[in-house]
Amino acid sequence: MSIRLGIAGYGNLGRALEMAALKDDDVEIEGIFTRRKPEEVVSLGSSVYSFDDLYYHADGIDVLALCYGSSHDLPDITPHLAECFNTVDTFDNHLMINEYKRRVDRAVSSSGKVSVIALGWDPGFLSLMRLYLSSFLPSPSVNTFWGRGVSQGHTEAIKRIDGVIDAVQYTVPREDALTLASLVSHPLSVTERHRRVCYIVAEKGREDSITDELLSMENYFLGYEVELHFISKEELKKYKSASHRGRVYALGSSGRYGEVKHRAYLDIDIGSNPDLTASIMLASCRAAYRLARENRNGVYTVFDIPPSYFAPVICENVNSYL
Amino acid sequence: MSIRLGIAGYGNLGRALEMAALKDDDVEIEGIFTRRKPEEVVSLGSSVYSFDDLYYHADGIDVLALCYGSSHDLPDITPHLAECFNTVDTFDNHLMINEYKRRVDRAVSSSGKVSVIALGWDPGFLSLMRLYLSSFLPSPSVNTFWGRGVSQGHTEAIKRIDGVIDAVQYTVPREDALTLASLVSHPLSVTERHRRVCYIVAEKGREDSITDELLSMENYFLGYEVELHFISKEELKKYKSASHRGRVYALGSSGRYGEVKHRAYLDIDIGSNPDLTASIMLASCRAAYRLARENRNGVYTVFDIPPSYFAPVICENVNSYL
Repeated sequence: MSIRLGIAGYGNLGRALEMAALKDDDVEIEGIFTRRKPEEVVSLGSSVYSFDDLYYHADGIDVLALCYGSSHDLPDITPHLAECFNTVDTFDNHLMINEYKRRVDRAVSSSGKVSVIALGWDPGFLSLMRLYLSSFLPSPSVNTFWGRGVSQGHTEAIKRIDGVIDAVQYTVPREDALTLASLVSHPLSVTERHRRVCYIVAEKGREDSITDELLSMENYFLGYEVELHFISKEELKKYKSASHRGRVYALGSSGRYGEVKHRAYLDIDIGSNPDLTASIMLASCRAAYRLARENRNGVYTVFDIPPSYFAPVICENVNSYL
Repeated sequence: MSIRLGIAGYGNLGRALEMAALKDDDVEIEGIFTRRKPEEVVSLGSSVYSFDDLYYHADGIDVLALCYGSSHDLPDITPHLAECFNTVDTFDNHLMINEYKRRVDRAVSSSGKVSVIALGWDPGFLSLMRLYLSSFLPSPSVNTFWGRGVSQGHTEAIKRIDGVIDAVQYTVPREDALTLASLVSHPLSVTERHRRVCYIVAEKGREDSITDELLSMENYFLGYEVELHFISKEELKKYKSASHRGRVYALGSSGRYGEVKHRAYLDIDIGSNPDLTASIMLASCRAAYRLARENRNGVYTVFDIPPSYFAPVICENVNSYL
């Protein structure tokens, strides 16, 4: 038995998902669906179709993986596709997940399909760490750190500034915050935990106006320690990196006076962001497939899904992990 | 709204659970139930009743926490209590969980109750790590290490040997195995990962026979690197420790030739084994309560329960962890 997978979107993530799926015996690829001209897309061997032909393949697809960005594509596309397909996605705008979930829910509740949303390494795996550690530790304090690694969202935000030719933005944990989180039971804000390092290729003479606009962008750079480097197109190449890192520090205390200390530390070193995200997406496909088979239609975040549903093989020997 | 909790068994774990529950607003303690004489048990303030009176309190208890050992008590007691109560326990004999689950399931399926079993820090939290990392990482290899910390099961096993007056057994990760697990994608056996350090108070002249019997105990010491220390009663006191530690090393690889490496590391440093276990048990009580409220009767391991069910407060703002 294998899950028949559709891949919608063929950028870095779609391509990584194809490669991951080709390696696994319990998944087969029905097709890749692109908004570009299919004949111009070179896959790793899977059939490539036009996005417009997706609905003709509905009967051949158990789960459709949506390999699109969170800023515009997913909010626009997912509610429509969720009416005809079981979908999985990696929507990653933390502040907008509730609103996104509601929108997808409206589509799914009338269709009888399953949508697994916002499931990558964060939101996703690190979300699980935060929830479990906050639930299991006595008097918990939990802090998450991202990086050093490229943030696609922040990079795109810089590129939208007038006068910017190209850019890369690294999210970097603050050393003082890492130390604090490992020692003191106190939640730190996202701006206290991270600094933002930007490498920018700018049009001549636009450096000052770019700096002003960048530093005033709310939710992106305002309130952060920001480091700006204006560099050449050639230099920028060496900063295009796919690696990333995530860390969770959790502290707890018990005993009559809180004198007994507990400490948890998770560190995930990610060789390639799209590769890991694609691998997690495959696990989501397995979960969506199992949920759909049980007719449990609805929209699911990682918090709504029993862990066993992600298990790597269809045959259920999941208790060997207990 | 609060969960009305019964505590069955009042050893280290029962006492730690009472202390944890007294600190939390969403739990109230209906009573502690002991097989000792209730008047001889000094609680931290909760009412103490005879175990034989448990059934009179059935209407006042939403969830009954079973604070007993795994070797004899839980397998004997849980199937009976699960007929009348929603139960949670920390059964921790990894090899026997499936068999235990089947036994409890038979009781629960006729009673309409919920039983959450085998949920502490391992099996429990570290089981989740193993399952998620094995499901999410590409080409995963996962190794778990326990200790340095006292194993109750192994300590009890030594105490059963003829000529042993008292003992403490530490489970200690092998340094060579820790290094290997962080570098090489290869699952190590439990004997390759750990050594066993035993501190024993023996009757005069019994050291040799104790050594022979101990080293030949299957599933406990046979095949392990074992370190034996025969010491005095007085010296043993300083080895009675409640702290423990758990580590999970996971490696993954992606890319066409597996050349892209991913690495995850979890380290949990436990100030007090019973305190952390009690705190996790409280989270299990919340999950059992929610499952029961939805009439989802049955027996559950941590793999069967959606993560959101463990969330610390009854009001559902769980998505803030996403």
